[in-house]
Amino acid sequence: MSVRAGIVVTGTEVLTGRVADRNGPWVADRLLELGIELAHITICGDRSSDIEAQLGFLRSEGVDLVVTTGGLGPTADDMTVATVARFCGRQLVLDPAMEATIAEIVARWMARFPDIDTRAVQAANRKQAMVPEGATVLHPVGTAPGVVIAGSDGPTIIVLPGPPKELQGMWSAAVATEAVQQAITGRTAYQQDTVRMFGVAESGLAETLRAAEESVPGFTCLEITTCLRRGELEMVTRYEPAGAQAYRGLMELVRERHGAAVFSEDGSTVDEQVAGLLSGRRIATAESCTAGMLAARLTDRAGSSAYVTGGVVAYANEAKIALLDVDPALIAEHGAVSAEVAEAMAAGAIRRFGVDSAVAITGVAGPGGGTEDKPVGTVWFCVMIADGPTTTRRVQVPGERPDVRERSTTVAMHLLRRALLDARAQT
Amino acid sequence: MSVRAGIVVTGTEVLTGRVADRNGPWVADRLLELGIELAHITICGDRSSDIEAQLGFLRSEGVDLVVTTGGLGPTADDMTVATVARFCGRQLVLDPAMEATIAEIVARWMARFPDIDTRAVQAANRKQAMVPEGATVLHPVGTAPGVVIAGSDGPTIIVLPGPPKELQGMWSAAVATEAVQQAITGRTAYQQDTVRMFGVAESGLAETLRAAEESVPGFTCLEITTCLRRGELEMVTRYEPAGAQAYRGLMELVRERHGAAVFSEDGSTVDEQVAGLLSGRRIATAESCTAGMLAARLTDRAGSSAYVTGGVVAYANEAKIALLDVDPALIAEHGAVSAEVAEAMAAGAIRRFGVDSAVAITGVAGPGGGTEDKPVGTVWFCVMIADGPTTTRRVQVPGERPDVRERSTTVAMHLLRRALLDARAQT
Repeated sequence: MSVRAGIVVTGTEVLTGRVADRNGPWVADRLLELGIELAHITICGDRSSDIEAQLGFLRSEGVDLVVTTGGLGPTADDMTVATVARFCGRQLVLDPAMEATIAEIVARWMARFPDIDTRAVQAANRKQAMVPEGATVLHPVGTAPGVVIAGSDGPTIIVLPGPPKELQGMWSAAVATEAVQQAITGRTAYQQDTVRMFGVAESGLAETLRAAEESVPGFTCLEITTCLRRGELEMVTRYEPAGAQAYRGLMELVRERHGAAVFSEDGSTVDEQVAGLLSGRRIATAESCTAGMLAARLTDRAGSSAYVTGGVVAYANEAKIALLDVDPALIAEHGAVSAEVAEAMAAGAIRRFGVDSAVAITGVAGPGGGTEDKPVGTVWFCVMIADGPTTTRRVQVPGERPDVRERSTTVAMHLLRRALLDARAQT
Repeated sequence: MSVRAGIVVTGTEVLTGRVADRNGPWVADRLLELGIELAHITICGDRSSDIEAQLGFLRSEGVDLVVTTGGLGPTADDMTVATVARFCGRQLVLDPAMEATIAEIVARWMARFPDIDTRAVQAANRKQAMVPEGATVLHPVGTAPGVVIAGSDGPTIIVLPGPPKELQGMWSAAVATEAVQQAITGRTAYQQDTVRMFGVAESGLAETLRAAEESVPGFTCLEITTCLRRGELEMVTRYEPAGAQAYRGLMELVRERHGAAVFSEDGSTVDEQVAGLLSGRRIATAESCTAGMLAARLTDRAGSSAYVTGGVVAYANEAKIALLDVDPALIAEHGAVSAEVAEAMAAGAIRRFGVDSAVAITGVAGPGGGTEDKPVGTVWFCVMIADGPTTTRRVQVPGERPDVRERSTTVAMHLLRRALLDARAQT
C-alpha cells in the first residue's frame, strides 16, 4: 500500500519568491526515506482562506498525511495553527504548561534586551501556546511549539514552524507521535538509488533508457527520473524491493554505454570524492573567470583546512603576473585565456603556496570579452599534480555569465578528481 | 477589481527537491508587475492525474489565470500539454507549420551530432508540435512551443516550458496574446516598494510597524511583509495608488527609528551600490574563512573587471605569510583571527596587488576551531581605503559554518559600502 502526503508551505515572502523555500525539499526527502509518496507541494501567502483551500484540496485528493510549514510566530500574520484547528473542527485552547515553557525560553533571550515591552512579550507567548484541542504538542526548538492533529475523516496534519532549523529539530518528534505512526503504517519500503554522470548528454541517457525498456526484464517496475544539475546528469531510480534485479540490469547497460561518465553510484558527490582524494595532499587554486568560486567550493566542507592551503584570484592580468609569476610575454603572445597561461597559473600556484596540487581556470565568462576565436564560454583549465600528471583542457562552457562561472567550477572539480585518481593509480 | 492567478510547477525533480524551482519565483514577480495577485503555487511530479487535480483546484478557487511550467519536452514523461488539453476539453491536433519550425531548429543542432537516430528525432518533433485545438501557439525558444488556451468557464491557461531561459524568452509573447489580455483586464495597478536594512533585528522593525499602525493614517491600506535575507532585513510594501500618502508616513517613521540601518529605498542591492562606489577604484580581497566567496560576489556582476584586480584566499597561515606578508609573529601573538592579522592581510593585499582598496576577512567558520575567547562565528574584518579610512571590526556571526561564511560576506559588503561612502564624503 502506498501512503501519500502533501506539503503546505505558507508565507507571503516564499509565495512571492523573495525567499527560497528550503523546507519543502527537506521534508520531501524525509518523506521519501519513510517510504511515503509525496503527491503535492502547495505554496500560499499568509492568508487564512488560501491556507484552508489548500488543506481542502489535499483532503479531497485523499492524502494520508499533510505537513504544513510556517506561520507559527507571535505576530498577527502567523495564522497557521488557528487555520488548521478550524479546518479540523477543533477549538483552540491555552496549554498553560507550554505557556510557561515558552516564557522560560523567551526570558533567557530577553536578558540580552533589557528595554523590551514585557506586556507585548506576554501576549506573544500566550498566542504561541494556543493549541488545537486534543492535538499532540511538539516541544519548541525556537519559541514556537509544533502540533500534530490525528486525522479522523481527513489526513493527519503535522504543523511545523518556518525557520528551517526549528522545523528540522522538531521533525523526529513529529514522526514519533502516535498519530503520525498510525497514518503511515502499511507503507511500502522503497529503495532509491542515485547515479551521477559527467560528460554525457541527457538525450544520450534517454536513448539508453529506451533501449533498457526493451532489453531489461522488469524495467517497468523502475521509476526513473533524470535531471541536469550544476552541469552533471543525475539519474534517480525508485523501486520496490522486487525491482532490485531490474535495477541491476539497468545499471549493467548504463555502465556499458556510459561507463566513463559515471562517477558515482552510491549517492556520493564529486565534492565528497575530491575531498577524500585530497587527503594527505595540499592544494591551491589560481582562478580568473571563476574568481574564488572554486576555492569557496573546496572549502565548503568542514575539515577542508587539512588540504586547502589557499588560492589566488587573478582577475586582472597584473594579478596573474604579480601573484602567480605568469610571464607577461605569454599573455601578450597567447592571450590570458590560453593553455600557456593556464599552465603558468597552475605552476605559479604550486610554487607560491608550496603545495603539491593546483587547479587553474582562465576563461571568458561574458557578456563582453568574447572574440571569434575565443567566444564567451571559452575556458582553459590546468590541473597540475607535482608527483603526477598535468591536465590542460579547453572547454566550451554553455550558457551566460553565471552559468559559465558555475559550470566551470564543476568542470574543474571533475578534472581534479580524474587527475587525483590517475596520480593515485601511478603510485 | 483584483485578478488572481495560480502557478502549476510540474516535474518530479522539482517536487522531490533535487532541483530548486526557479520558474515559480520568476513568474510570481512578473505577475506582480502586471498587478495580478498570485494566490497559489502548486508543485507536482510528472503524473497526469496530479497535474489535472491541481488545475481543478485552481479552477475551483476561481483564479482568472493559470501558468504551468515544465513537461513540454519530447519524452513520454512530458505530458503537460496533453493534460491541459484534456482538462479544457480540447483535442490535441498536429500543427504542421510548428512541426516544420521545430524540425528546422533541431536540424541546426543535429549538425553537431551526426550519429543521432533520425526517426526518433522526427517522432520527438511531432510530439512537440501537437497542440490543443483553438489554442494560441507560442514560438519556441528552445524546441518546445508554448501554448495559451483562453478560458471559457475556467481560467485562461498559459503553458510554458521548464528550462528558465526558454520560459523567460516566451513570457512577453504569452502576455501579449488576446486570451491573456482579456483575462487580466480590469486589474488594479499596485505599487510595490522595497526597503532594505542592515543591522536591525526583525523584532525591532515589528515594533515600529505596531507603532505605525497607531500613528500613520491609512496604515491598513498597506500590505507589508518583512523578511530576513542573507543577513539583511527586507520590507516590501504593496498598496493601491490611494495608499501612497500612508506609505510616505510609514517611511518617515522607519527612517526616524532605523535611519542608520536603511541602506536602500529604491530596490537597489548592496552589491549594486558597492559596484557604483568602486567606479574609478581598484580593489583586492584577502579572505580566510570565506575563502573566495567575497571575490566571487564582487565579480558576479558583468563589468566588474573595471575595478576588481584580484584576491588572495589565505586559508592556511603559511598562505597569509607567503602571499600577504603577514608577520608570523603577529599570528603567534594574536592568533590568525584577530584585528592585527585582519589589518595586516588588508595592507598586504593593497601592496601586493597595487590597488587602492582592500577587504580582509579572517574568522572561525566552524564547526571546529572555536575557543572560549573566539567561539565559532567570531570574524574580524578590515576594510582599508588607501586615501581614506581604515575600518577594523569584530562581528559575532550567528549560525553554522555555511551561515557564518555567507553572512560574513554580507557583513564585508556593508562595511565596504560604508567605508567607500565615508571616503567619498572626505574628498
